[in-house]
Amino acid sequence: MDCIFCKIVAGEAPARIVYRDDLVTAFHDLRPAAPVHILIVPNRHVATLNDLTPADETWSGHLLETARRLAAEQGLTGYRLVLNVGAEGGQSVFHLHLHLVGGRRLQSHLGLA
Amino acid sequence: MDCIFCKIVAGEAPARIVYRDDLVTAFHDLRPAAPVHILIVPNRHVATLNDLTPADETWSGHLLETARRLAAEQGLTGYRLVLNVGAEGGQSVFHLHLHLVGGRRLQSHLGLA
Repeated sequence: MDCIFCKIVAGEAPARIVYRDDLVTAFHDLRPAAPVHILIVPNRHVATLNDLTPADETWSGHLLETARRLAAEQGLTGYRLVLNVGAEGGQSVFHLHLHLVGGRRLQSHLGLA
Repeated sequence: MDCIFCKIVAGEAPARIVYRDDLVTAFHDLRPAAPVHILIVPNRHVATLNDLTPADETWSGHLLETARRLAAEQGLTGYRLVLNVGAEGGQSVFHLHLHLVGGRRLQSHLGLA
């Protein structure tokens, strides 16, 4: 398994972990694009959102709930969640990850520049 | 109730609805920022993600699952999901909405310009 996020989840690659439970792991992005930039990933390897099935709905809400809670813990009231899907969607690491970015005013509406 | 998205959900304001069920309604953004630009909203009024509770995890995954399915129906393999939270996060309408954008190459990584 050559997935860097799987290695982080397994504790085999360094990362500044901010939260983990049975379903998800959250850690600071190595190259933060904002004062707060946390990635939230499912512990099991899922390449992209396209690889989920309707049954995954039972846990995928936990990604959003974890983001909400971590944002509150970071003292953020305004922030952005971004999920890039596929190369065309700007996804670079192919282990599903939800970006939580905040800590400065986000001007661009959707990041479509 | 003066919420435009509540009116759309109730059928009291016009919108190009693409999907609806007991939990969510999806419709084309009035001012699309990309060839495909769909908003997915919970049918009940929730102002922002900050207003969810851990109990909402049971349905919030349905937002992501609905986005995944609609993207597939639109023929998209690459796309971006964006959830702006709060004014500082770029949220403009205060009824929680998940943006599904795609149909052209998305260059900016996170829309933080």
